[in-house]
Amino acid sequence: MRVDGREHQEIRKIEIIKDYTMHAEGSVLYCQGNTKVICNATVEENVPPYLLGTGKGWVTAEYAMLPRATGTRNKRDISKLKQAPRSTEIQRLIGRALRGALDLTKLGERSIIIDCDVIQADGGTRCASISGGFLALALAINRLMEQGLLEENPIKKQVAAISVGVVNEEPCADLCYQEDSKADTDMNVIMSSLGGFIEIQGTAEGEEFDKKQLDALLSLAKRGCKKIFKAQKKVLEK
Amino acid sequence: MRVDGREHQEIRKIEIIKDYTMHAEGSVLYCQGNTKVICNATVEENVPPYLLGTGKGWVTAEYAMLPRATGTRNKRDISKLKQAPRSTEIQRLIGRALRGALDLTKLGERSIIIDCDVIQADGGTRCASISGGFLALALAINRLMEQGLLEENPIKKQVAAISVGVVNEEPCADLCYQEDSKADTDMNVIMSSLGGFIEIQGTAEGEEFDKKQLDALLSLAKRGCKKIFKAQKKVLEK
Amino acid sequence: MRVDGREHQEIRKIEIIKDYTMHAEGSVLYCQGNTKVICNATVEENVPPYLLGTGKGWVTAEYAMLPRATGTRNKRDISKLKQAPRSTEIQRLIGRALRGALDLTKLGERSIIIDCDVIQADGGTRCASISGGFLALALAINRLMEQGLLEENPIKKQVAAISVGVVNEEPCADLCYQEDSKADTDMNVIMSSLGGFIEIQGTAEGEEFDKKQLDALLSLAKRGCKKIFKAQKKVLEK
Amino acid sequence: MRVDGREHQEIRKIEIIKDYTMHAEGSVLYCQGNTKVICNATVEENVPPYLLGTGKGWVTAEYAMLPRATGTRNKRDISKLKQAPRSTEIQRLIGRALRGALDLTKLGERSIIIDCDVIQADGGTRCASISGGFLALALAINRLMEQGLLEENPIKKQVAAISVGVVNEEPCADLCYQEDSKADTDMNVIMSSLGGFIEIQGTAEGEEFDKKQLDALLSLAKRGCKKIFKAQKKVLEK
Amino acid sequence: MRVDGREHQEIRKIEIIKDYTMHAEGSVLYCQGNTKVICNATVEENVPPYLLGTGKGWVTAEYAMLPRATGTRNKRDISKLKQAPRSTEIQRLIGRALRGALDLTKLGERSIIIDCDVIQADGGTRCASISGGFLALALAINRLMEQGLLEENPIKKQVAAISVGVVNEEPCADLCYQEDSKADTDMNVIMSSLGGFIEIQGTAEGEEFDKKQLDALLSLAKRGCKKIFKAQKKVLEK
Amino acid sequence: MRVDGREHQEIRKIEIIKDYTMHAEGSVLYCQGNTKVICNATVEENVPPYLLGTGKGWVTAEYAMLPRATGTRNKRDISKLKQAPRSTEIQRLIGRALRGALDLTKLGERSIIIDCDVIQADGGTRCASISGGFLALALAINRLMEQGLLEENPIKKQVAAISVGVVNEEPCADLCYQEDSKADTDMNVIMSSLGGFIEIQGTAEGEEFDKKQLDALLSLAKRGCKKIFKAQKKVLEK
Repeated sequence: MRVDGREHQEIRKIEIIKDYTMHAEGSVLYCQGNTKVICNATVEENVPPYLLGTGKGWVTAEYAMLPRATGTRNKRDISKLKQAPRSTEIQRLIGRALRGALDLTKLGERSIIIDCDVIQADGGTRCASISGGFLALALAINRLMEQGLLEENPIKKQVAAISVGVVNEEPCADLCYQEDSKADTDMNVIMSSLGGFIEIQGTAEGEEFDKKQLDALLSLAKRGCKKIFKAQKKVLEK
Repeated sequence: MRVDGREHQEIRKIEIIKDYTMHAEGSVLYCQGNTKVICNATVEENVPPYLLGTGKGWVTAEYAMLPRATGTRNKRDISKLKQAPRSTEIQRLIGRALRGALDLTKLGERSIIIDCDVIQADGGTRCASISGGFLALALAINRLMEQGLLEENPIKKQVAAISVGVVNEEPCADLCYQEDSKADTDMNVIMSSLGGFIEIQGTAEGEEFDKKQLDALLSLAKRGCKKIFKAQKKVLEK
Repeated sequence: MRVDGREHQEIRKIEIIKDYTMHAEGSVLYCQGNTKVICNATVEENVPPYLLGTGKGWVTAEYAMLPRATGTRNKRDISKLKQAPRSTEIQRLIGRALRGALDLTKLGERSIIIDCDVIQADGGTRCASISGGFLALALAINRLMEQGLLEENPIKKQVAAISVGVVNEEPCADLCYQEDSKADTDMNVIMSSLGGFIEIQGTAEGEEFDKKQLDALLSLAKRGCKKIFKAQKKVLEK
Repeated sequence: MRVDGREHQEIRKIEIIKDYTMHAEGSVLYCQGNTKVICNATVEENVPPYLLGTGKGWVTAEYAMLPRATGTRNKRDISKLKQAPRSTEIQRLIGRALRGALDLTKLGERSIIIDCDVIQADGGTRCASISGGFLALALAINRLMEQGLLEENPIKKQVAAISVGVVNEEPCADLCYQEDSKADTDMNVIMSSLGGFIEIQGTAEGEEFDKKQLDALLSLAKRGCKKIFKAQKKVLEK
Repeated sequence: MRVDGREHQEIRKIEIIKDYTMHAEGSVLYCQGNTKVICNATVEENVPPYLLGTGKGWVTAEYAMLPRATGTRNKRDISKLKQAPRSTEIQRLIGRALRGALDLTKLGERSIIIDCDVIQADGGTRCASISGGFLALALAINRLMEQGLLEENPIKKQVAAISVGVVNEEPCADLCYQEDSKADTDMNVIMSSLGGFIEIQGTAEGEEFDKKQLDALLSLAKRGCKKIFKAQKKVLEK
Repeated sequence: MRVDGREHQEIRKIEIIKDYTMHAEGSVLYCQGNTKVICNATVEENVPPYLLGTGKGWVTAEYAMLPRATGTRNKRDISKLKQAPRSTEIQRLIGRALRGALDLTKLGERSIIIDCDVIQADGGTRCASISGGFLALALAINRLMEQGLLEENPIKKQVAAISVGVVNEEPCADLCYQEDSKADTDMNVIMSSLGGFIEIQGTAEGEEFDKKQLDALLSLAKRGCKKIFKAQKKVLEK
């Protein structure tokens, strides 16, 4: 049994507050266990220079943690004049994953920025940012549809992410911080609701991993993502 | 009557969630109307160099807004490699105000950092940060008392702040964003529960103001702060 | 009696050198006691983006101290890649105060930048920057008038500032550094020659202050500003 | 057949110049096809603060490209005051991968920094940096052994990396830039000479990928890494 | 005849105000024609890490221009987060030149920082900074001698600098801005009162220069520096 | 005899690899003894704002050292958010020197950027960057001529640089690092193939130098530059 009593394939409780902040075009508070992320989508009627005139839109993401989202306080990026390298890496991942959900041509020449701000961290914040970020994106697109600014819905499929890992030689789904910090292998799997992989990032923290372990982790991830797709759907259908 | 139906001396509804995040030594979500600020207090067992060996502690504050706390998205400080000048000014004000609440010698040689992160802005965010920041500070100190790390409570008095201003030639309390943006005079008043002033910052945005208007605004502020002191007390007595 | 022999309502000697540097459109060296500030006004034929097409002009200020303006050397901002937070706060104050002196519509779509560089500091540098900055601004505008670039003078009134404070329980005007560093309450008051307030910033450094003290300080400020208005006039009439 | 005439499983020609620069403790010029990376290892007799007193050492990496390593010139990081986000991500990957090769306890409390500077880029620069970086690391450790500063060799296994991807629906090994820029799925696989995975990063640039494609890519990667292990061995045995 | 009526070997009028600011250990306002530089010396009882324990002291310089020292306003370094490259180059030159004046062993393990702030520029600001900076340095050392902190005077010789150049095919001394901007060859010569060269920096802006021109310029420089040595002496003997 | 057995007037062996990298418009690896610099020229079809519409082109240079080009590792500029001041100074020198080689009007409104990246340093890196940078520039211009983008060759003359200095009281040519670090006088001389001087920078590190020493150093420099001009010619005629 796991530190919080879950079974190895069990993911944490998902709670989502729709329309969490009032100014953003799309907004949710996405909670998975004790991990809580505010995901806000902003629509801007411009695109990066290299897309001008292509008719294509763009989706990008920014990720940050409040200083006290974690057990010890992290200094703000601005006080070090440098984004935390971990945040740089994570926001590039979120951006790639969410772009995978869309037909950017149908979006037209506009940008959607997904701000993922972690207010409380307990493992899996990058995955929660992707699963919640997809919702903020979808809500913003719904609004564009309602306003008649989009003719066709550019969303091709849902996108969700889950962390899986080998803890005490046992493959587990949705690691909390305590598990994550002693996992041998740690893998973030991003999937689409069509069943395929959008991104896989697996790292051997301690011992290397083999094909068999990889296969076990991917099948846990598949199962976990299904639960998240269901939770996302419930929010979007409200 | 005002844009949101309030009378000129009436302040907005205050809602406070105690222990809002789980890692901080003191934490509240402080809401006044649609303005919502997460206030987290962190205790660190060190002081700035110039206090080493003095036996005195320190309280400092940091203030920031989530990019989409406002109607249009603000770029993150780190993307401009510069803290927003408005934030610099505000966090200095919060720090001064909260230090005024304490006997720093009784705190001992430790620092308390108050992080005020605005997740939704509708006017009065600096005042909400002070009123909520006081609570985070008090909760962190309660914990130090409970842990036996402090013998005597260093808190001398409660501290609260309210914005007042002249809108359409009428002095009003607790301006929301729509009122604030067209006010002639805008004043932030920080008071203590003992009845005195800790800081007054009054600015004539348009026409200059006279002594009579100043007096009217200060008496509205006094009335408003009293309500906030009551709300703070209720949280601390829970 | 005060440390430098002045009476409590007495302000320090004001000395102003007009046209202090040769390149600026308006320039003075403003000295109040041992505090010395070079105030240079630059006229630029452009405005910030949000004023384009409005027909309105803009006034902004920058404030800095030479590294050795003070008793111990301050590192230059550039060596820390960060403007001193105190300077950020002060230059915002100077800008707001000087904009209050003008009808920005009469200025037309141009900007005036007031550079306030403190070459020697002995308390009250922000107030000296405002009182001297007003002169640099007025001289630059005079030149625009002479060149026929302005039809109507946009200056509505003179602007001056003075620091007042409670020292040894006595309200005093125009604190020097030694007084300022032990004052209980410290207040910067910015007034116009029409008699009203443009900005009031009062801070309780130690004990909080009450309404009676506030009133006493404001009346000292009024008296002090009158002296400065007279000195400013003499320069402008030369 | 591929753009450069290779078969789908064929990797590019590997050329390695040992002891490429004269000052570094370990140095190679690692070339795979037209991709050329200078890998220099520096030994420093200190560790990051959190390892002090643990008896453990550290390995970290820095990655950069010369401005004209690519078809169009990239501005230097310093001119933008920001490391290219891509470099941030890559150097974290290189560091993790190379730490996986070592028993850090056997290294003792010292750090080895691997500088990977790409002088010519034609796809696969992060993989070349890992494969070449391992050599620089091993050479630096050999020197420590020769100097009697290490009793036991901390290297547990060789580490190498290869990029694989689906190009025109065909899984291919060791993509050159032209292939990489039109690949549907792009995967970087880091393996050890013991046969296990150290890191897998697979991204669907266009269409998502399925388990079957993943398996095909991983088996190409295994084959490619074997060739690199052989080339590394030849250099180390010289 | 030259633009300002001088003969080709004639230098501009030198005016020096001793003890210009009140806080610095050594301070002058150094004026050569319309070029005006505040030179302040600060003594700090520490040295850079690489001199710790050597018994040697250090002299370093910082150079900056007020934004409106020039005909058009220059943005402050901090607003670009980068020191003007020209300032970087100049302050390194000033530091090298002034270190040449001292026996750093006699200075003991302390640092002297020379701040050169140009308040008005009309050509030759780097030379004026060296000639004036030497005075600030000497005054600070005099004070250390008076305070009994130094037994032996570490000053070996006076140091002065002058710009010379070929203007309209005629070698001229002490170029003003108007001359400097159209000179073919521009040379800064730093000499000691013992008669030798400390630094020569000669640049062909347009046509290259030959040995004969170089010799003519150096002999003008020698003559000019003599005048400056005399002016420096007068200040130090006051 | 010198540390490496050379006679005092003897320069180190020059080795130049033409077309060293494949993407740059002009590229060489320039080696003088153990000093090795990659010089890449990039042609961009734009000019700095102040040249727009003048019909003139621009040449600029950037200089950097790989972290381990030297005996001890230098941190990258980006980790300190500041270009090494020495690099700032050197790249300004390289730019000035190379602009001296060209008729910028014949270049037309385009820019050529010369990137000089030192991969191994053993003294004289700035001079090697100029001598090699000239070649990269010339190769890029040759390509523009071949492409018919230039009608007339803008190169007026070859440019080369050499360091000379007084070591153990003996004037020597082309100092290696060991000599340079104990030289009394250190001089960098940039000459043109027409025989004149483009820039002279001579610094007395220890004792000042006199006219006689200067003359001796300049004549060594002339001799050394002739050898470099010959080596450059051979590369260009290949």
